[in-house]
This record gives sequence, structure tokens and C-alpha cells, in this order.
Amino acid sequence: MLGVQQAIELMGVGVFALTGALVAARKSMDPFGFIMLGTVTGIGGGTLRDLLIGATPISWIFDPTAVLVCAAVSLTAFFTAHLFESASRTRILLWADAVGLALFAVSGTERGFAAGAPAVSAVLLGVVTATFGGIIRDVMAGDVPLVLKRDIYVTAALAGAVVFALTAAVVPPPLPALFGFAVAFVTRGLAISHGLSMPQYGARRDE
Amino acid sequence: MLGVQQAIELMGVGVFALTGALVAARKSMDPFGFIMLGTVTGIGGGTLRDLLIGATPISWIFDPTAVLVCAAVSLTAFFTAHLFESASRTRILLWADAVGLALFAVSGTERGFAAGAPAVSAVLLGVVTATFGGIIRDVMAGDVPLVLKRDIYVTAALAGAVVFALTAAVVPPPLPALFGFAVAFVTRGLAISHGLSMPQYGARRDE
Amino acid sequence: MLGVQQAIELMGVGVFALTGALVAARKSMDPFGFIMLGTVTGIGGGTLRDLLIGATPISWIFDPTAVLVCAAVSLTAFFTAHLFESASRTRILLWADAVGLALFAVSGTERGFAAGAPAVSAVLLGVVTATFGGIIRDVMAGDVPLVLKRDIYVTAALAGAVVFALTAAVVPPPLPALFGFAVAFVTRGLAISHGLSMPQYGARRDE
Repeated sequence: MLGVQQAIELMGVGVFALTGALVAARKSMDPFGFIMLGTVTGIGGGTLRDLLIGATPISWIFDPTAVLVCAAVSLTAFFTAHLFESASRTRILLWADAVGLALFAVSGTERGFAAGAPAVSAVLLGVVTATFGGIIRDVMAGDVPLVLKRDIYVTAALAGAVVFALTAAVVPPPLPALFGFAVAFVTRGLAISHGLSMPQYGARRDE
Repeated sequence: MLGVQQAIELMGVGVFALTGALVAARKSMDPFGFIMLGTVTGIGGGTLRDLLIGATPISWIFDPTAVLVCAAVSLTAFFTAHLFESASRTRILLWADAVGLALFAVSGTERGFAAGAPAVSAVLLGVVTATFGGIIRDVMAGDVPLVLKRDIYVTAALAGAVVFALTAAVVPPPLPALFGFAVAFVTRGLAISHGLSMPQYGARRDE
Repeated sequence: MLGVQQAIELMGVGVFALTGALVAARKSMDPFGFIMLGTVTGIGGGTLRDLLIGATPISWIFDPTAVLVCAAVSLTAFFTAHLFESASRTRILLWADAVGLALFAVSGTERGFAAGAPAVSAVLLGVVTATFGGIIRDVMAGDVPLVLKRDIYVTAALAGAVVFALTAAVVPPPLPALFGFAVAFVTRGLAISHGLSMPQYGARRDE
């Protein structure tokens, strides 16, 4: 299972690095700016999770594979992003972010369980892993975090993490990971493609 | 004393979670957005303090009570915040933030002492605990942090932490906690109600 | 070598604290706001590096020298910043930031090696140390991080860290630190004084 876990984690790192690089493109940064923002986005969520768990030194210090994946993805984006129109890039950004969100919701929850956390906290660590890379990316870039947009975001990560946590006790791997990924991705995907959203806070008329 | 310490910490967590939820209301977020922003605000300052001390895994991973308090407070806010006018909510936000600031200035300093930190650093950890939940809340929400506003804020946390640190050596618990809380809350409260402020940096005319 | 290492680190802390205090001046903060923003900027990058390495409790908790340096620099700035015109202060801010960037690129990489990290990760820790104090400063102050500006920034930190890492294996201390500092500072300095920049991402015409 560890191999699958690591593969899921690295895929999540890669797609989140891509989203960071696409934000760097929007800000017309130089190549090392791409690498910086891509890397922080790719490894930010997992790094925060590992800090909270106390799993230090953080794993990428002694095995920089994830960092090198981020750098490679970011540089590739620097040299190829201009091949796509602006609207396409925004769409790629949203969908890559959705894939990363779903992958990290699952892998983060699994890491939480592996660290001995109770189910509530493992799910919470899944949500932290899935959302904080993007939050750090958006805050560093001076944008409003996607997570604050009104359409379903935290909800999707939470749904995937909960489905993984519930099914992990019942069916053998890698089924729980597949179920959790599918639920998170479809939930977030519907929000992107159909503009679905949770009932949002209804403010008073006088505001 | 540990019981009192934990009770103070949980009250601080709860009122800060309320301030996070009220910011979520201003941004018209969905229920899970409320829970996310409320929880990050409620446990953010204490989590940073514990990371700095090296007290990992962070306590809420194995005892998610604080997280559940945040979730309950945030959901309650989601369903009831509309009962108050916008101006009332802004006032509740400011005063709840002041209560949390005063509670965390005391409990953070106490935790610093408990970790064996010298007085200067214990006070610093109190200020970190009291201010960073709100800073993370405001930065995530794209607002200018309250701490940067010109009226007394860091000053109030520092005053409460110093009073706690000085009296802890002289009078028995829970008196130092009460003194520290009172000084921090009254200082911040005067700034809110009377617009009191420290002498601020006076820029040259040519700016 | 440890004495030189500590001296470099403290100088970096001091000049970064100055940049934080100058941003506090621009925002007309009160004295404790100056101390807060100066201190966070001065010790932020090194603190993040030590958290990632797992070197906790963070060193300034048991030896608050760095914090006291930050407080002293910030208070001095509060009482003297008005002696300079606004344009001078912006220039001082940029150049002090450049000195801090170069010092931390070297000392951060050295700390990475001391923690047993492989060269790639030691360089990465150097870049983290050099850039994150300023990133936290700018994000807390609601400004666009300098690191996102189009002129060379991450590039300068990376160049200095790489030169230090490469020469550390060949020549005796303190030569590698001097070489690394010089390369980072001159690179960043040219960007400031001559507006040099890396080839930046060229967006399509249709954006």
C-alpha cells in the first residue's frame, strides 16, 4: 500500500505545482519565480500536515523527489504555458486544482491514520493537506483564496476524506482511495462545471 | 491549575472561532467554509505556539475537543448570524476578538512557562498565541489584519502577558491569570470603545 | 566557524527586522506594531527553516538574543525613521532587504548542511530562509510580496546558495560564505540599481 500512497502523493504534488506555475504565469514571473510558487503550492499542504503530526525533518529534506517534480513541472509550464489561450489556462488551473484536491484529501487522511490519529483528526488532516497548498499559493500571489469562493471547495475535500475514512474500515485497498478520490473530484467537478454550491450564508437585507 | 488552564484555552478557542465565523458571514461562505475559517482562527494561534515549542503531534490531533468546539460554534454562527444586524455583528466580532486576545495572552504565556521558556520568551509566546489566530483569519480572508490597525492591539496582548508573567512569581493561581486577562481586556476594550491609541509613527510631511 | 555562522545569522536578523520596521512606518503603526512586524520579519525565515528541519524548541525560545535584536532595531527605527525622506526609506528598505537576502541565503544553506541535508535540500533551505521573512512581512502588511516582483529575487538567493554549496566542498571557511554572499548581493543589487531581470514569462497577445 505504501507504493500506491507515495504515487498518489507525488501525483498530487505535481498537479498542485502546475496550478502554482499557472498563477506565476498570470503574474508574469521569471523562471525561478515559477519554480518557487510551483514548489510551495505542490508541497505546502503536505508539509503543514507533517509539521502538525511532528513528522520532522520534513520528508522532502532527505528525499527531494517531490521538490524536483515541482521544479520540473514548473519549468515545463514556464516554457509551454503560452501555447494555451488565457481562458484555457484558467480552466486547466481549476481542473488541476480539483485533481490535486481529491488526491490530497485521500492521501492526507491516510497519513493521518498512519500517524495514529483518531478518525475525526485524520479527516481534518486530509482537509488540511488538500486545501493549504492552494491557500498558500493564493495568499502569496495576493489573490483571494479559491477556498473562500462560494462554490463547493472545502466541502469536496471533506466529502472525499470522510468517504475514505468510512470505507477504509470495510473494503481492502486501493478501493477506499478510489472511492474517496472519486467523491471529492466529482463533487468539486460539479461545482466547477455546473456552478453548484452549498446553501450559502444569507445576509440580512440591511447590509 | 491544569483544569483552569484548559478551560481558559477552550474559551479562547471558542470566541476566536466565533470571530472567524463572523468573517465567513461577511464573505457569504457556505457552512463548511464557516467551519474551516472558524477552526483555523480558533486553533491557529495555539497551534503555531505549540509548533514553535516543539509540542508535536499538536494536541488537537489526539484530543479533537478544540476542533469540535470550533465546528459547533461556527455552525451555530452560520444558522444564527442573520439574527443580528450588520453593525451588531461587527461589534460582536471586535469584542469577541478582544476576549480571545486577553484569554490567549494569559494561556499562551502560561504554556511558555510550562515548556521551560525564560520570561521574555514566555511573554513572546503569549503574544504569538493571542495574535496569530486573528492574523491567519484576516490574511486568509484577504482583509488587512486587525493587528495592523492603528489602535492598541499588540500592546494589549503584551500588557496582559507581562502582567501575568510578573504576578505569577508573587501571587497564587488563579490570580495572575485574572490580573493578566483583566489588563489585556481593559486595554483592548478602551481602544475599541474610546478609540485610544499609542503614539503612532509620525511620517514626514513630504510623504 | 560556529561564531561566524551565528554572527552572519544575527546580522541577517537585524537587517530584516529593519525592513519590517520600515514597512510598519509606511503603515503608521504604533511602537509595538513596529516591534511585532520587525520581529516576525527578522526571525520568520529562520524559524520556518528550523521548523522544517525539526530543530525545536526554536532556538530563540531559549536564547532570545535574536528577538531582542529585532526589538531594539524596530524601536530605533520607530524613533528615527522620520529623519529620512520617504524616497530614502524605500531605498533603505530595498537595500537592507538585499543584504538580509544574501546573508540568509548563505547561513540557511549552511544550517541545512549542518542538519545533514543533501545539497539540493540545503540550497532549498537557504532559499526558504532568505525569502520567507520578507514574504511573511509583505503578506501580513497586505502588500504584494517583493518575491513576486518581476525583477530578480529568488534567483539571487538561489545563486548565492548554490555558490556557497559548491565552494563549501573546495575552499576553507569563511571563503564559501563570502563568495555566496557576494554573488547573492551583487545579483540582487544589479536588479535593484539597473532594473535587470530574468527573461519573464511572455503571455500571449490575447490576454
